[in-house]
Amino acid sequence: MGIGKSITRVDAYEKVTGGAKYTDDLRPANCLVAKVVRSTIANGLVKSFDLSEAEKVPGVVKIVTCFDSPQIQYPTPGHPWSVEPAHQDVADRMLLNRRVRIYGDDIAAVVAEDEVAASRAARLIRVEYEEYPAVTTVEQALAPGAPVIHEERPDNLLAHSRFTIGEGDFDEIVKADPSLRVFEGEYDTQAVQHCHIEVPVSYAYMEKGRVVVVSSTQIPHIVRRVCGQALGIPWGKIRVIKPYIGGGFGNKQEVLYEPLNAFLTMQVGGRPVKIELSREETFSCTRTRHAIKFKLKTAVRPDGRLVARKFEAWSNQGGYASHGHAIVANASNAYRHLYQDEKVLDADAYTVYTNLPSGGAMRGYGIPQVDFAMEAHMDDIARGLGLDPVELREKNCMKPGYVDPGTGITCYSSGLLACIEKGKAHIHWDEKRAAYRGQTGPVRRGVGMALFSYKTGVYPISLETASARLILNQDGSAQLQMGATEIGQGADTVFTQMAAETTGIRLEDVHIVTVQDTDVAPFDTGAYASRQTYVSGMAVKKTAEKFKARILDYAAYLKKRPADTMDLRDSAVVDAHTGEKLVELADLAMEAFYSLDRSVHITAEETYHCKDNTFSFGCCFAEVEVDIPLGKVKVLDIINVHDSGVLINPQLAEAQVHGGMSMGLGYALGEQLRFDDRGCPLNGNLLDYKLPTAMDTPELNVGFVETIDPSGPYGNKSLGEPPAIPPAPAIRNAVLNATGVAVDSLPLNPQKLVEQFTAAGLIQ
Amino acid sequence: MGIGKSITRVDAYEKVTGGAKYTDDLRPANCLVAKVVRSTIANGLVKSFDLSEAEKVPGVVKIVTCFDSPQIQYPTPGHPWSVEPAHQDVADRMLLNRRVRIYGDDIAAVVAEDEVAASRAARLIRVEYEEYPAVTTVEQALAPGAPVIHEERPDNLLAHSRFTIGEGDFDEIVKADPSLRVFEGEYDTQAVQHCHIEVPVSYAYMEKGRVVVVSSTQIPHIVRRVCGQALGIPWGKIRVIKPYIGGGFGNKQEVLYEPLNAFLTMQVGGRPVKIELSREETFSCTRTRHAIKFKLKTAVRPDGRLVARKFEAWSNQGGYASHGHAIVANASNAYRHLYQDEKVLDADAYTVYTNLPSGGAMRGYGIPQVDFAMEAHMDDIARGLGLDPVELREKNCMKPGYVDPGTGITCYSSGLLACIEKGKAHIHWDEKRAAYRGQTGPVRRGVGMALFSYKTGVYPISLETASARLILNQDGSAQLQMGATEIGQGADTVFTQMAAETTGIRLEDVHIVTVQDTDVAPFDTGAYASRQTYVSGMAVKKTAEKFKARILDYAAYLKKRPADTMDLRDSAVVDAHTGEKLVELADLAMEAFYSLDRSVHITAEETYHCKDNTFSFGCCFAEVEVDIPLGKVKVLDIINVHDSGVLINPQLAEAQVHGGMSMGLGYALGEQLRFDDRGCPLNGNLLDYKLPTAMDTPELNVGFVETIDPSGPYGNKSLGEPPAIPPAPAIRNAVLNATGVAVDSLPLNPQKLVEQFTAAGLIQ
Repeated sequence: MGIGKSITRVDAYEKVTGGAKYTDDLRPANCLVAKVVRSTIANGLVKSFDLSEAEKVPGVVKIVTCFDSPQIQYPTPGHPWSVEPAHQDVADRMLLNRRVRIYGDDIAAVVAEDEVAASRAARLIRVEYEEYPAVTTVEQALAPGAPVIHEERPDNLLAHSRFTIGEGDFDEIVKADPSLRVFEGEYDTQAVQHCHIEVPVSYAYMEKGRVVVVSSTQIPHIVRRVCGQALGIPWGKIRVIKPYIGGGFGNKQEVLYEPLNAFLTMQVGGRPVKIELSREETFSCTRTRHAIKFKLKTAVRPDGRLVARKFEAWSNQGGYASHGHAIVANASNAYRHLYQDEKVLDADAYTVYTNLPSGGAMRGYGIPQVDFAMEAHMDDIARGLGLDPVELREKNCMKPGYVDPGTGITCYSSGLLACIEKGKAHIHWDEKRAAYRGQTGPVRRGVGMALFSYKTGVYPISLETASARLILNQDGSAQLQMGATEIGQGADTVFTQMAAETTGIRLEDVHIVTVQDTDVAPFDTGAYASRQTYVSGMAVKKTAEKFKARILDYAAYLKKRPADTMDLRDSAVVDAHTGEKLVELADLAMEAFYSLDRSVHITAEETYHCKDNTFSFGCCFAEVEVDIPLGKVKVLDIINVHDSGVLINPQLAEAQVHGGMSMGLGYALGEQLRFDDRGCPLNGNLLDYKLPTAMDTPELNVGFVETIDPSGPYGNKSLGEPPAIPPAPAIRNAVLNATGVAVDSLPLNPQKLVEQFTAAGLIQ
Repeated sequence: MGIGKSITRVDAYEKVTGGAKYTDDLRPANCLVAKVVRSTIANGLVKSFDLSEAEKVPGVVKIVTCFDSPQIQYPTPGHPWSVEPAHQDVADRMLLNRRVRIYGDDIAAVVAEDEVAASRAARLIRVEYEEYPAVTTVEQALAPGAPVIHEERPDNLLAHSRFTIGEGDFDEIVKADPSLRVFEGEYDTQAVQHCHIEVPVSYAYMEKGRVVVVSSTQIPHIVRRVCGQALGIPWGKIRVIKPYIGGGFGNKQEVLYEPLNAFLTMQVGGRPVKIELSREETFSCTRTRHAIKFKLKTAVRPDGRLVARKFEAWSNQGGYASHGHAIVANASNAYRHLYQDEKVLDADAYTVYTNLPSGGAMRGYGIPQVDFAMEAHMDDIARGLGLDPVELREKNCMKPGYVDPGTGITCYSSGLLACIEKGKAHIHWDEKRAAYRGQTGPVRRGVGMALFSYKTGVYPISLETASARLILNQDGSAQLQMGATEIGQGADTVFTQMAAETTGIRLEDVHIVTVQDTDVAPFDTGAYASRQTYVSGMAVKKTAEKFKARILDYAAYLKKRPADTMDLRDSAVVDAHTGEKLVELADLAMEAFYSLDRSVHITAEETYHCKDNTFSFGCCFAEVEVDIPLGKVKVLDIINVHDSGVLINPQLAEAQVHGGMSMGLGYALGEQLRFDDRGCPLNGNLLDYKLPTAMDTPELNVGFVETIDPSGPYGNKSLGEPPAIPPAPAIRNAVLNATGVAVDSLPLNPQKLVEQFTAAGLIQ
């Protein structure tokens, strides 16, 4: 009764009417305000502070600096914990850092009665530094004699990973078969920012000797753990509460300022203290999508069959490890997932420290970058071979039954070829590819496309575990309590649908608990990796099955008949065979609560430990009009077609794709974080950073091919992140089709296009 | 490891440092404020309102009156619900009442941006009434032709109950045995108020189409139900959150303004709205302890053995039913519990509507009243027979093995005789009774005493059910989540001790969840009837046993040995026989959370449906000095000695007794709510209502006799209410001992004593 229906979001009304309570709406009236004091150098050492003027500001309650805060190094990424040290995240920062590595590094904090006093005092603090030269690019960082960023990594290399799939050596294979064509390309992606509407915000206070942090986060249970680590106190002494959040996109899959906030309330006797970042701080001092450079080399038969590939990638990590090597490693793994080689794939990936803002998780987790490189490269190959780009891809792409040799992840279901058909039909691929041949003149049109594949959750790289709880009310309604989090993506709505589907309780009678409180919420690692409908969804299903069994057990007592002869449908217990109604759930519930013979509060709680994974697929087809003299690309038509298995809520799925496509368009055409040589941000605000607006956005078309994935709780697989992946390469390939110019870096903004069109002789 | 230790209250530090969050501390910054408009007549009809001036006040958001609010009658007492209509509470009031029955009745409400605007507007509302004569006493209310208060009860009689225990007719028994002595007495108790520090306060807002009420209440789950009833919406659409509360003593075992608050937020689009009563409103418009009049008649053998008794009681209910007849019925039942007759006890009890503030639950629930009457009467009998009052009582009081013929409640354990011995020894009873014979002069001394018995919880009159939940953390600590409520009595502390005792987890690692949120809290009816350590305590025990079993089950998996060969002690899994440590709970917990083989969030949840009850006992011994010309009683020495079974936390138990004794002293000597003939309060504020202060309070001595009650989870039985019961009759009997004057009504204030001493010829 719940799955596959486009029900209205459970939080729609209160979100559009302003009734929804976000972190700052809940802040108590007597809350203090903290401001972080930030370094004005990107690489160096804090030598001393002069606090004398700051301390005189009326309303200042406390100033703490990197000299009097815990000297504990801790990790910040929202990864499941591992009990094995080798699999634990890199711990390379402190609450406040004396050794600064980015412009805007956290070096002190002021707590005051209000924001004005805190800001004034923060500005009055004088800092003496020892400044070192800053490095901003991978090349600078890896150059011999480069300034060192973390003393324990004198080569600035955070990690290097390498794998070989198949057998043989690329060069020998090429030498042995002269019929093979070899293509090489270098592709480059830029740093961008998530630009969630709600900036990072939290407030913290103490309660019974424990610290409570209320935060806009995707990962309350992980925030709890990391606060414990950062403060060096038992994790059970921390309580994290997550209200509604105004977007995260991976930036809040990071433990940002919650540990500092927890520390600050401890410094002022447990009084509530709030930290809310400005937009500028959000750009510079939270996380970015990694800029990654790729070198790709491919040997291919003339008919387009891939024989051997080499892959190299260098990821610009910025100043702190954050998710570390995981992102470029994910990118390199994904390079083997969409297409498979006859003989061998060699891959190397490097993560390099620089003095830029730290790269972290962002929707797609390395795949938008690699997909740009891979799909640009595929079009370059198709062009070189004179093949249709679609044909080349169809010939090489993953088919059902594929088992990844590295992880064992199996392709249980694939609607990829059907997605391509839908995309082709929508964009009139064959007609337009023919029509757009041999264009001249300043304004030309083209069509392009790109594919992607995407995993679902993090198994077997990391732990996948989720728990849920259901609590019956007297009126037959029930609360569904999750550790998984609604972050705008519609999780609360689809979990509600799942619970209704499996319990047989009416949709409107399933009340999702939207705030996660780690003291009482079932354990779940949170919203990331497009895992929740797949992993947490199975926890809902298991819990709902147990809950229903308990209800039917009570019905067996009431009706004096075996539980297995009954079912729960439309909030009533019915005869399982005839469907005859035996008792309304509301009446059963009243008995269960208030029976003088057998009173029981019916609840259920279950953990699902997921040991599986699956691939979702999709493609983007785009038609562009390129104004060559202006270097301006106008997207005339665009469609994403997705195979995410069964759609729990088609309308929400479509909205999810819209959001991802919009993000992909900004990535393709305009967004880019820029810095000067000292690592100082040049456009870290929403005026200068060109996020696409509604005016810049074409009609977004969405198609779906619904497969039924046997590993998903309801046949579903990943959907949250994939939509952001394919638009950029599809648009790049459409520009190539229109102009013949292969632009090998993002974004395709006018400045770059004019340069490249000039170099290609299209502009004289 | 937890039971019987005087650990510091878990909330001590934050309560004394001001860190504890009460309802008003949590109120969001943008909260509107509501003021209730109150009738200025005690009996009559609202004919019309003129809102024109009020509506002009800047900041007024909404005014609702009794003409445009739901016309649904609902009950207010904090009783467990019954699915049988005959056992449901009397529903005799609406959110706002057009037909007013008390001075200060709720007739309209103003919602405004702040308190000043709300108060100004409320004062500017003009009301036209049709006024009827008010009745303030039981005699007036029952007189023929009395003004009617509830039209559906034209005789003003809410209820009459009658029971006979034993066989025979009182008058015939007396006639048949001329050796019997017959004693008659009339005893009268006054209305008093709870005087909790925190006045009733709540705020409400809407969330996903549901109403959330944050309230200072003893009974969050019952508030949820009654809000649903009052608003005519499903109970599952209401969510109630209970923070710390600053006292209740039964007044918050009542659903006071939460339903109106819920209605008001619905009237302003779900914006938060707060209602906080003033102290004056708390006196007049919440609940009081019932004034009850008793007529007692006793036939007794010359040796003091009770043969036959008659009991009549009339309870002044005030304007609305509230807990209704339950309180005087409880008093009449208790009359048969402390002493048993050879032949017969006849009892009649009446509850009568008047136009005074409604009587409701207050610590002791009718027993302080009946104990005053009964224990005054016993002293009068002892005096008449020339017996020692202690001897008379010992001869007649309940002994282990007693089974109440009405309810089946069994006396499993009694330390009453030992309590008496302790009390006698403390006060030097025999010496002082001898020494104080034949005193003359204006200042005289006396010693007096009184006993009591008290049930534990409400079984079998009503449902007794409680649930609890335990949630493991990564560090081996755990949250204990209860539906039962901390209301200042120390429940959170003793539940923590119980969980530690039964799980084997260290005390400091049990984190009690102190806020009850009905969306996620296990079901429990709340704090009243001294039930929580007994009923909810057993829920803790059952849950703790299940939780421990789940931990040992995981240990069995980790250690590959049967669970039943292991135990959990001091937060470590040990060999059950040798005590050898096998694994720290913290290490086990980390594995359970993060195991790549078997990840499970270990939690447990259980309901305990209690179908038993037991008696606790105790006594008070007091020594007084009476200044006859001034009518002034000074308590020189006082001790309460209690048998409450095993004490979970002796220091908290002692504090509980201190609080009750203080309440009993106020009841004995000074407190009394007074009204004029129109039902208008004369002293409804803390200046004119003489609550005893620290200056008025003697050293409070406490003794315990610990029995082990087999029906209590840890041998414990009721403790919360009993301490308030015996001081008033003990002091009355001490004054009798000092002066020979039997004062048969409360309080023993100077005005009354001077009158009675004058009548007795002690003052010329």
